[in-house]
Amino acid sequence: MKIGFIGLGHMGAPMALNLIKAGHALSVFDLSADAMRTLADAGATLAGSPKAAATGAEWVITMLPAAAHVRAVLSGEDGVLAGVSKGVTIIDSSTIDPASAKAFAALAQANGNRFADAPVSGGTGGAVAGTLTFMVGGTAELYESVKPVLSGMGKNIVHCGETGTGQVAKLCNNLVLGVTMAGVAEAMALGEALGIDAKVLGGIMNTSTGRCWSSDTYNPFPGVIETAPSSRGYTGGFGTDLMLKDLGLATDAAKQARQPAYMGALAQQLYQAMSSHGDGKLDFSAIIKLYRHEGGEKG
Amino acid sequence: MKIGFIGLGHMGAPMALNLIKAGHALSVFDLSADAMRTLADAGATLAGSPKAAATGAEWVITMLPAAAHVRAVLSGEDGVLAGVSKGVTIIDSSTIDPASAKAFAALAQANGNRFADAPVSGGTGGAVAGTLTFMVGGTAELYESVKPVLSGMGKNIVHCGETGTGQVAKLCNNLVLGVTMAGVAEAMALGEALGIDAKVLGGIMNTSTGRCWSSDTYNPFPGVIETAPSSRGYTGGFGTDLMLKDLGLATDAAKQARQPAYMGALAQQLYQAMSSHGDGKLDFSAIIKLYRHEGGEKG
Amino acid sequence: MKIGFIGLGHMGAPMALNLIKAGHALSVFDLSADAMRTLADAGATLAGSPKAAATGAEWVITMLPAAAHVRAVLSGEDGVLAGVSKGVTIIDSSTIDPASAKAFAALAQANGNRFADAPVSGGTGGAVAGTLTFMVGGTAELYESVKPVLSGMGKNIVHCGETGTGQVAKLCNNLVLGVTMAGVAEAMALGEALGIDAKVLGGIMNTSTGRCWSSDTYNPFPGVIETAPSSRGYTGGFGTDLMLKDLGLATDAAKQARQPAYMGALAQQLYQAMSSHGDGKLDFSAIIKLYRHEGGEKG
Amino acid sequence: MKIGFIGLGHMGAPMALNLIKAGHALSVFDLSADAMRTLADAGATLAGSPKAAATGAEWVITMLPAAAHVRAVLSGEDGVLAGVSKGVTIIDSSTIDPASAKAFAALAQANGNRFADAPVSGGTGGAVAGTLTFMVGGTAELYESVKPVLSGMGKNIVHCGETGTGQVAKLCNNLVLGVTMAGVAEAMALGEALGIDAKVLGGIMNTSTGRCWSSDTYNPFPGVIETAPSSRGYTGGFGTDLMLKDLGLATDAAKQARQPAYMGALAQQLYQAMSSHGDGKLDFSAIIKLYRHEGGEKG
Repeated sequence: MKIGFIGLGHMGAPMALNLIKAGHALSVFDLSADAMRTLADAGATLAGSPKAAATGAEWVITMLPAAAHVRAVLSGEDGVLAGVSKGVTIIDSSTIDPASAKAFAALAQANGNRFADAPVSGGTGGAVAGTLTFMVGGTAELYESVKPVLSGMGKNIVHCGETGTGQVAKLCNNLVLGVTMAGVAEAMALGEALGIDAKVLGGIMNTSTGRCWSSDTYNPFPGVIETAPSSRGYTGGFGTDLMLKDLGLATDAAKQARQPAYMGALAQQLYQAMSSHGDGKLDFSAIIKLYRHEGGEKG
Repeated sequence: MKIGFIGLGHMGAPMALNLIKAGHALSVFDLSADAMRTLADAGATLAGSPKAAATGAEWVITMLPAAAHVRAVLSGEDGVLAGVSKGVTIIDSSTIDPASAKAFAALAQANGNRFADAPVSGGTGGAVAGTLTFMVGGTAELYESVKPVLSGMGKNIVHCGETGTGQVAKLCNNLVLGVTMAGVAEAMALGEALGIDAKVLGGIMNTSTGRCWSSDTYNPFPGVIETAPSSRGYTGGFGTDLMLKDLGLATDAAKQARQPAYMGALAQQLYQAMSSHGDGKLDFSAIIKLYRHEGGEKG
Repeated sequence: MKIGFIGLGHMGAPMALNLIKAGHALSVFDLSADAMRTLADAGATLAGSPKAAATGAEWVITMLPAAAHVRAVLSGEDGVLAGVSKGVTIIDSSTIDPASAKAFAALAQANGNRFADAPVSGGTGGAVAGTLTFMVGGTAELYESVKPVLSGMGKNIVHCGETGTGQVAKLCNNLVLGVTMAGVAEAMALGEALGIDAKVLGGIMNTSTGRCWSSDTYNPFPGVIETAPSSRGYTGGFGTDLMLKDLGLATDAAKQARQPAYMGALAQQLYQAMSSHGDGKLDFSAIIKLYRHEGGEKG
Repeated sequence: MKIGFIGLGHMGAPMALNLIKAGHALSVFDLSADAMRTLADAGATLAGSPKAAATGAEWVITMLPAAAHVRAVLSGEDGVLAGVSKGVTIIDSSTIDPASAKAFAALAQANGNRFADAPVSGGTGGAVAGTLTFMVGGTAELYESVKPVLSGMGKNIVHCGETGTGQVAKLCNNLVLGVTMAGVAEAMALGEALGIDAKVLGGIMNTSTGRCWSSDTYNPFPGVIETAPSSRGYTGGFGTDLMLKDLGLATDAAKQARQPAYMGALAQQLYQAMSSHGDGKLDFSAIIKLYRHEGGEKG
């Protein structure tokens, strides 16, 4: 297949590389010359604009930081919609708000194209390994049609419902993630202050009703899970500022829907406090620093 | 073994029955005549006071609503300490604050007895089935000695550390539980408002980073998990007022330890709002009512 | 003076009428024919577009619902910047985010114009009475120059600092307002539940350290302040949805600045809960309904 | 009048001294020899126990740190009730929970005595100057009878309603105080981050709807109010740990009454975070440190 791919960042670059490995012909675009060079080395054709990348493509995939970038890449003078052939499906794997996803679908439709929102989970590790989960919004027929393409980059392709629900699934999941991590951090630090061994406490939670991904896979207390970022100084992993972006999308969507988001909004402020302390680049499980009494590191 | 057992409520009665089934001779006490009759029918000896139940016993077990009851049962004129033989170990399976557990251990020691805090998880179902988890605080030697007795009532007997840490483990786990349930309820209701199917959303969370006991086993959205209280009108299960008691213990312990408990304190207020609406007897997963727009039920 | 005035809503219309009373010649524009008719009756010239209203004007004033409207009114094809003469000052009294205010100032400057952000407080009552407070952002010289014009609509014209700080002052004040009202509502309802008379409690607060505008002027408990919206069914006053808009601006600005806004974010969720219950049009002091046990009204 | 006075701490000592100045004969008790000496120098009779202080007194006044101390002082073997004559009124000016106040009134009544709860506001400054506010719970007749005695220590003696409502008034006021201070701190720090001058922002709040004691009298931003603790390094004033005690009483009372206390509970956690950082002795307005970016001081 000929695929136009726009956005070659930490996630986009390995995703595009996996598509090439899967046998597709890629025409790529990114503002970063370095990112372009990496893809060229792997056999991609370099395009001078989103429009050029989309011209002649059978599929277009975008992987960008925020809705404003997606809008510019689609609708700009040199944008995808100016170059793409009628009937081609555009897949946006960026994490953005559901309302924007619907608006982009309408823009695409007016241009004679189809649009699927397909944000991912699995992080850079999953992007490199080709084991991402894709949450797809669109008709059942559209879902079936995009599945073979996405399979080149992920192992779990889920149909979430109509346009925008891929984004809804992503933001609802990450709302829970942000809240549970804050809750686990709070409880682990409280347990430490009350004199229980962290590994013992982690073990109990993980076999009881407090069990969750934030405790059994990604425990924020150093040494409880050897493979977690907390055991290597909170490096790597899912950055606090990215969690902040996703909680911002969740609380904004709640605001639009007039739904209270008490727990999510509070968790958001706690991550914001971390970021204001200069810890925005650390893994989001470093939120436990707000609770622990460690000399200068204390939040 | 001859065991004195005090406290025959929803949890205590089935626990005592399981000890009888395991071949122990029980001398029991409770203020409820009905509860006493049930145990008498099963072969227990009825005692007229905690003191009488403890007299001649090789082990004493207490299972009571709160620390004030434990104090009265231990230290009252007709209390356990007035009747129990020197050297006998007292096991308290009530859920109380760690500081009280330490104080009771000191009282027991002054009386020539040993004391283990051993709160449980697993609910009334686990109490009936004999599959409770016991979280034991005390020396390693004490833990080894109580293990055979507790095995008659549970399948998972965990050593948490020194005296009081059984209670610490319980309250830290339930702090996480209260927070994650509130977070899952918030996200499931938000997803509904934004148009995604609840079963689809639940399925995505359960295979992603939002995975937790509150989503994959006890999801608060009706119909997502057929065996959960949410699928039978929030009846049975773990009552909101019990969750409130446990979150109260957790935030009080945090207050004593000068640890902030942002997420736990907020979750506590949300469950309190439910209770103030008259929903305190419903399963705690009914907290989702605070978020959903269902006519008169809306919070 | 010849003044172009765009935006004749609940606030804008009485403000424009006061400018006419003060002797200015107004050329006005609004999408509502009704609003235009009222101003025509008072002697204003009706313009067919923002551009037309700005053409020939010595001052331009905008009073619009949100930043998106201001952008359209300024930069649209028939917008203010297309018609206004070089050197004319544009005063925006809309409540918007500080970053947008700065962006609009830059647009104006590129067009050869000056721009002052000048949001107001005082509500529709103050707009009608001509007693609004204007919070002005811009150079000291610009502030001195706009003062005489604004004096026709308000009695308190405050210089806040450089461009955007008028909006900063507005959102910081309203952040405090939203938080204190929620706090007073919480305390008044708690006092009621604990058996103290609301007027007595209000009286004590107002002579003690709990004293605030939300208690001594606008108390949310019915009957404590006879002139407050709470004493007339929470009608009139400052609507919950408007408070939500302002708290949204405050927490968004905090997010941009990486400042935690714990209290504001929580208050925002509480007002959002009210709005989700269908109470968004009630005065924001109706937040006390979330705390009081009044049959069907209870939140 | 002959008055027995128990509790000569930072508040009790100056209160007792003012009673002596007002011409009363005091018999005093405290565990601190230093405190006793100060009162002896001023002409008080030193008693060897609460019982001795109460023996022969026409009034008994207690001023103690917490409910547990009041209970011990009243009901202990050498307690007030063991020595006091029938018919004498006991006035407790400690800040405690309303339920304990009611329990103590019942104990007093069973002993043939009357009991008024009469907590104070005004701080050590007001205690020294004799300008305290007393919030009195009890019948109207009881209120009238205690007024002349309390007038020796304060200038504002308010009748709050039945027994316990003095404490209700105190805790509701301080709930509002804790919340508004946190809100003002949040807004002042946000304003600073967004580039507005703190004095200008404070001035706008104080003439607008954000006006409150925490902004116009006790502003937490250094330099805005020269006489506030914030302008002298957060020394003196009302300590964070005392605010924590009062917010603890408020949220506990809310828990008993099944009232949510969202804002109060969150504010409590923020002050707790300060205390956990070692700032519990600083004035409570130092909560602004959680929001400001000042090198090592940052929260």
